[in-house]
Amino acid sequence: MFESAELGHKVDKETYEREVPILREALLDAQYDLISQRGFQVVILVGGVDGAGRSECVQQLNAWLDPRHIETHGMGEMSDEERDRPPMWRFWRELPAKGKIGVFQGSWYSLPILHRVYGETSNAALAEAMERNVRFERMLSDEGALILKFWFHLSKAGQKKRLLALEKDPRTRWRVTERDWHHFKLYDRFARVCSQSLRVTGTAHAPWHIIEGADARYRELVFGRILLEAIRKRLDRPAPPVDTPAQPMAPAVDQLNLLRALDLTTSLPKAAYQQQLEAWQGRLNLLTRDKRFAKLSVACVFEGHDAAGKGGAIRRITGALDARRYQVIPIAAPSDEEKAQPYLWRFWRHIPRRGRLAMFDRSWYGRVLVERVEGFCAERDWRRAYREINEFEAQLVEHRVVLVKFWLSVSEEEQLKRFREREATGFKRYKITPDDWRNREKWPAYEQAVCDMVDKTSTEIAPWTLVPANDKYHARIQILKTLCERIEAGLRDRR
Amino acid sequence: MFESAELGHKVDKETYEREVPILREALLDAQYDLISQRGFQVVILVGGVDGAGRSECVQQLNAWLDPRHIETHGMGEMSDEERDRPPMWRFWRELPAKGKIGVFQGSWYSLPILHRVYGETSNAALAEAMERNVRFERMLSDEGALILKFWFHLSKAGQKKRLLALEKDPRTRWRVTERDWHHFKLYDRFARVCSQSLRVTGTAHAPWHIIEGADARYRELVFGRILLEAIRKRLDRPAPPVDTPAQPMAPAVDQLNLLRALDLTTSLPKAAYQQQLEAWQGRLNLLTRDKRFAKLSVACVFEGHDAAGKGGAIRRITGALDARRYQVIPIAAPSDEEKAQPYLWRFWRHIPRRGRLAMFDRSWYGRVLVERVEGFCAERDWRRAYREINEFEAQLVEHRVVLVKFWLSVSEEEQLKRFREREATGFKRYKITPDDWRNREKWPAYEQAVCDMVDKTSTEIAPWTLVPANDKYHARIQILKTLCERIEAGLRDRR
Repeated sequence: MFESAELGHKVDKETYEREVPILREALLDAQYDLISQRGFQVVILVGGVDGAGRSECVQQLNAWLDPRHIETHGMGEMSDEERDRPPMWRFWRELPAKGKIGVFQGSWYSLPILHRVYGETSNAALAEAMERNVRFERMLSDEGALILKFWFHLSKAGQKKRLLALEKDPRTRWRVTERDWHHFKLYDRFARVCSQSLRVTGTAHAPWHIIEGADARYRELVFGRILLEAIRKRLDRPAPPVDTPAQPMAPAVDQLNLLRALDLTTSLPKAAYQQQLEAWQGRLNLLTRDKRFAKLSVACVFEGHDAAGKGGAIRRITGALDARRYQVIPIAAPSDEEKAQPYLWRFWRHIPRRGRLAMFDRSWYGRVLVERVEGFCAERDWRRAYREINEFEAQLVEHRVVLVKFWLSVSEEEQLKRFREREATGFKRYKITPDDWRNREKWPAYEQAVCDMVDKTSTEIAPWTLVPANDKYHARIQILKTLCERIEAGLRDRR
Repeated sequence: MFESAELGHKVDKETYEREVPILREALLDAQYDLISQRGFQVVILVGGVDGAGRSECVQQLNAWLDPRHIETHGMGEMSDEERDRPPMWRFWRELPAKGKIGVFQGSWYSLPILHRVYGETSNAALAEAMERNVRFERMLSDEGALILKFWFHLSKAGQKKRLLALEKDPRTRWRVTERDWHHFKLYDRFARVCSQSLRVTGTAHAPWHIIEGADARYRELVFGRILLEAIRKRLDRPAPPVDTPAQPMAPAVDQLNLLRALDLTTSLPKAAYQQQLEAWQGRLNLLTRDKRFAKLSVACVFEGHDAAGKGGAIRRITGALDARRYQVIPIAAPSDEEKAQPYLWRFWRHIPRRGRLAMFDRSWYGRVLVERVEGFCAERDWRRAYREINEFEAQLVEHRVVLVKFWLSVSEEEQLKRFREREATGFKRYKITPDDWRNREKWPAYEQAVCDMVDKTSTEIAPWTLVPANDKYHARIQILKTLCERIEAGLRDRR
């Protein structure tokens, strides 16, 4: 793995000074093309051996390029904000937007490798973390990002020499810490764990670029050239080809499907509703005040037909909650900022801290519902989304997010009745738009998309609850009850 | 996951009898187009709940299509041949060739799921096995295969009803075993483990097709329609687009590289050689007679410049071995049969049993050497090969195959000398072809390919040994010594 990076590569001063101006100019050109195209973002990971020149290269990069369009992140200790979310949250929030370059010094590789070297985790846990990284990078890459992973390497003797040299010079002495020497003693362990990690995560779309770190001129020139070639290649490449999988969705052989099988006649009289509402709201309030609740968080997803009563159901939940504890996140068309990111980014940013609740009024499932049906994304994109969403939700659930997903279902007739009501009632008119009428015409396509969604994303860790919603009272009580039960199960979970 | 497959789907007799002839004709047409194109193979996995109609569907398929071009594999207990190889070997050997349909009833999912349900393995082991399956299927798919994964499902009540019905009928009573009832008792565990497995392995290029198994007409019609649509879609699709990664290989900034850094002047006098040869051959012989040797196997890879002495080195090894224990596998251009398979297939077929040795005279590394340099495969294909090869080798090493990889390096001048010698010596003329002269002209490109190969595939589990081979005596002794040491390490390994 590191063979070529222990040969003693060197660049003489003359060559360096001849080559750098050429490189800088070409890099700046590439950066400006990147900025004006805004077609993709560049994600740079900088890892490797202590003392191999990681920070120097990052500094050089900021000197060579226009630093206003580079975001550098030294991912050190986690903040309390970060610890309260799944481990990948901190990286999601720092992802560069299209047109930008994001540099991560310390990345999604750092902690899994460190924990394994320190013997705090098993080999299987390392392997799992690395597979997660591969999936994450594949998703980023499928979403258009250019991922460049650099690894700066020194041989064992080389690292020792470098640390001693840094210590000897009064100007750099401060840079060598006890931790550096401690890590040096663990060199062989590091080498083994890193080699394994790099072996399983070097993919064709996101390979590792291993650079010998001993000679500053050499490493900077190689770093700069790889960066330049990659960005240039990507800029000049024609639009990525569309490779639609030859896999059919479930064919409709009979007339039966999940939504049609739902009994929409269930209802609840008003008096019973009012009584039960109070009872369940009280219970929900108590649950969120349980001291064990501080260890978990809740994310509710509300999807459903237009006018199925999502908003009303959410208000019956939030009515039972302390306003400091929850947030309602209405999902409409993405903002410019959101469009410049992978589609899951806008949902990651709203993942609640521990002890909090988030109500998503529509959600990441838009990808496989409206985006699929309306053709807002390519078929291959919504096809891969099912697995990406399952992976995303698995990360939430692992982090003790209680994830509760509701589909509110009404019949076509009931929807028509509600649309007309909305049009007729002054203070409800804002709730009905031409879009709603247009969507209605695509009822069968939406129905198919909903069934596929439930089949592919109703999992043992995050099941869907299908709610018959022709009767609002019944729907609201079912939702409150399900939510309470899921939170109770979450509180009992002893992880 | 299984929601839509518990609704009680049904197809009436009339519809069935109207639809089946149409379906059969279209399926046969598709099969014949598949056979005449020979562009890809169809890999069908049939899994699911006992009693949900798996075997019936496979039988139906053989009745509907031309069975001469369908290969059906009921993967039951492993044979001793199979147990002696890595677990995936049995599937590799049964892969259908391009133009064929291969049906696996029982697949790479069966054992990992079963072991987990029985509590013999951990959740982490299940997750790892599933990730391996995803990688395997991605590789097959990248190599052109169409993968169709079917899962026949029954609800718990449905399974009970079905087993009772089978038992009641004297003609089908034999089909219900004690194991079936035992599995029925484990229904909930199965459901949980299967749901998890399906969740993480349902990818866009190889999704799961879940079919309700209660009604025979329904399940057959759905099964047939999915099959038809997938094959037809794939046949009619234009050639898959080529998506070359925008990732540069290591740029040459100085003149140094792994091969040039090798000291080719090392040599060994003839007398010392003869003495050491005898000593190492004796030691090798003893090692292969060690009773612990029965638990492992050895695969040696010999790559090197033309005329670097691979054949001679191999003969010095085999000279020390019992002829029943080893095989030499010379790798030339692939046969027709091999060309109709994923490129690793021709190497998998030669993986030695436990207690045996295999010497590969050239190997799977052809993919990233000659195929890369000569353009025999697309860039994206050799790019992904590094990771696929690492994965392949990891499977070998996990199964206690001692994998020893040699690159025999000579200088350009030494090669020229040997080429001329070969041309001048009658009995050596068969060893030199116009190809050899042509390859020589591409020396720098091959050199780059070799360096990249070593950097990307010399891993902690399967390192490369670079052998200076200008002096044959020195080279042979280094090879024998390395081999002995690696086998000794293998014998000490107590797994």
